[in-house]
Amino acid sequence: MSPPIVTLLTDFGLSDGYVGAMKGVLLRRCPDARLVDLTHEISPGAIDAGAYVLRQSAPWFPHGTVHVAVVDPGVGSSRRAVVVATEHHRYVAPDNGLLTLVLEEAPPVRVRSIENRELWERDVSAVFHGRDLFAPVAAHLASGGEFEAVGTEVSPGTLVRRPWPVPREEGPVRRGCVVYVDRFGNLVTNLPVAASELATGSVEVAGQVVPVVRTYSDVSPGELLAYRGSTELLEVGCNEGNAAARLGSGAGLVVTWRLRSGS
Amino acid sequence: MSPPIVTLLTDFGLSDGYVGAMKGVLLRRCPDARLVDLTHEISPGAIDAGAYVLRQSAPWFPHGTVHVAVVDPGVGSSRRAVVVATEHHRYVAPDNGLLTLVLEEAPPVRVRSIENRELWERDVSAVFHGRDLFAPVAAHLASGGEFEAVGTEVSPGTLVRRPWPVPREEGPVRRGCVVYVDRFGNLVTNLPVAASELATGSVEVAGQVVPVVRTYSDVSPGELLAYRGSTELLEVGCNEGNAAARLGSGAGLVVTWRLRSGS
Amino acid sequence: MSPPIVTLLTDFGLSDGYVGAMKGVLLRRCPDARLVDLTHEISPGAIDAGAYVLRQSAPWFPHGTVHVAVVDPGVGSSRRAVVVATEHHRYVAPDNGLLTLVLEEAPPVRVRSIENRELWERDVSAVFHGRDLFAPVAAHLASGGEFEAVGTEVSPGTLVRRPWPVPREEGPVRRGCVVYVDRFGNLVTNLPVAASELATGSVEVAGQVVPVVRTYSDVSPGELLAYRGSTELLEVGCNEGNAAARLGSGAGLVVTWRLRSGS
Repeated sequence: MSPPIVTLLTDFGLSDGYVGAMKGVLLRRCPDARLVDLTHEISPGAIDAGAYVLRQSAPWFPHGTVHVAVVDPGVGSSRRAVVVATEHHRYVAPDNGLLTLVLEEAPPVRVRSIENRELWERDVSAVFHGRDLFAPVAAHLASGGEFEAVGTEVSPGTLVRRPWPVPREEGPVRRGCVVYVDRFGNLVTNLPVAASELATGSVEVAGQVVPVVRTYSDVSPGELLAYRGSTELLEVGCNEGNAAARLGSGAGLVVTWRLRSGS
Repeated sequence: MSPPIVTLLTDFGLSDGYVGAMKGVLLRRCPDARLVDLTHEISPGAIDAGAYVLRQSAPWFPHGTVHVAVVDPGVGSSRRAVVVATEHHRYVAPDNGLLTLVLEEAPPVRVRSIENRELWERDVSAVFHGRDLFAPVAAHLASGGEFEAVGTEVSPGTLVRRPWPVPREEGPVRRGCVVYVDRFGNLVTNLPVAASELATGSVEVAGQVVPVVRTYSDVSPGELLAYRGSTELLEVGCNEGNAAARLGSGAGLVVTWRLRSGS
Repeated sequence: MSPPIVTLLTDFGLSDGYVGAMKGVLLRRCPDARLVDLTHEISPGAIDAGAYVLRQSAPWFPHGTVHVAVVDPGVGSSRRAVVVATEHHRYVAPDNGLLTLVLEEAPPVRVRSIENRELWERDVSAVFHGRDLFAPVAAHLASGGEFEAVGTEVSPGTLVRRPWPVPREEGPVRRGCVVYVDRFGNLVTNLPVAASELATGSVEVAGQVVPVVRTYSDVSPGELLAYRGSTELLEVGCNEGNAAARLGSGAGLVVTWRLRSGS
């Protein structure tokens, strides 16, 4: 049997000792754990960005993986902390909506509130639950500890969900907005794209009309394009360039996709 | 038995090939080693910041861990390089004060000077001891090699220590300064806080009076607070904001903590 | 036998979910793989920088390592993707010159075109071959799959090579240019330095004459120096400073090395 995998997603950054401390606790309590960073570069407190990046990456891991996700501006307050089991994965996180998108992809099957202090570090810092509470609970699960031992049962329907803007569809026209901007300056929208819809129509964004094509090099260098992104959402990019910089903006921009040219 | 853990802390950054080269050498010489990054984002040559981040993270690792720490502006000069064993951990580092704070937390038990060239890479670059000297010595220790084989014995008292500003205590008033600023803009001071001192009094910093509370959400969004940080030192932060940006400054700021309001 | 090592070098950055998704696919398909990041901070699309950083780090890894390298502005176009075996290592990459420098250090022995779709993810995104094509093929090789199964044979001579500026030698004078700037602001040139040539002569760069010495501390703080870098190329640096910032520039600068002073 392969050793347990624990992934980490936080807004702690990579320049301080926070991530290292979490990893120390994880390895002290679950010496076999294989630790994998998803990212630690979520902007401080940016729950929505964390939810999107978690959705981009966590579902690709093997069944049984434990994902610790900590973007937690309410640390130390009365906000709830939870463990959530889906069919194949387990998540350890504050109950603040960070799991919204992964739980749309795979619904929660079992949820427990993190309450059993015997599993935690003895002296819990009020400002660093990643080290003193989330890492120990993840180690508990990864080392085969009982899910039920974490705390009392929670109804999945009570989990906090972040609102996700709903696209509107009017015949061959879909209206949505930019929900995430990646490091390349690609604008990810909330408009889902079926595989069969590749390369059809055009997109209007920030006053520009952009062709929907298959990949970057289908337009000339420096030109804007729209395409089916790797999370199956429509994205706007720029071949050998940065669309966010070109359009002077990013998250929140309104996007109108006309599936047929001239429609 | 679990495989040996080797952590890495450097100022090499993550954009060049330096960290990768160190890891290649470590894995070639100790194929079972489990490599864990503490951070590589210490500012170039910032020994004090490296000492603090090492103190934040290294002590949380399992007994027996080998920590390689390289913030080494004097690389290739006559500065000494050492291996240091504390009761539970081993450190491989230049002898420039980088270990100051971890050795306050757990004193050195055995120290050797890194001198035995047979353990190193054959062609030692004068500017990259991380790859050619520190990584091989860490691999030697991690794979069970003798501590004594590294080089001649060194008296722990001769290790270079960085000066750490000493707080002053005048009755219910403590005076100190900011020693580190983290990625959230939290200001870490040199003032220790006992667990029993939570949420008492106020702090004066940069002309502002800030309440000492338990956690961020105990003040309104955008407001400053002081609290017991996760390294048990007083910190000044800003709920849903950045205290360093708010105060226009960081390391070196004078901090006055009045344990009772009005004192 | 030690578990297989897979290194990753990309321009995906660490803030999005791209690297996490690749790692999830790698671990799902090769549960024993030990994943090691070389870097993910290559500037978007910077093939030459990727080639240099890969050369800095990949050759230090144990024999048998699989290196996945993805700096791929032509993703989804008709550009070829390949697996390349050298005597001791295997590379999985787009055929766009990213392997130029590692293949100068160790020539390609066997090359296959990545064509066998049965090895890939079922639904291949046109914009994320790292996750859907390169990671699965790397997992195939790391888990002992046949090299030949990846696709049809390719003549090594047809691999795309990036032009590397050739230094000119005129008696005791060598002329070259800056090919890479690292995070410390050190300027890496294309001028090779034999070990026996340490500390001889001077270098002219950007109107400044800089002594060739052994290491940083051989000049005063704030002064420029030239030295044999850790990839055995001449570099220009600044003791306790940043040469690129001092000289106001970096890649492309002309460098003239006079091996004897006054020559």
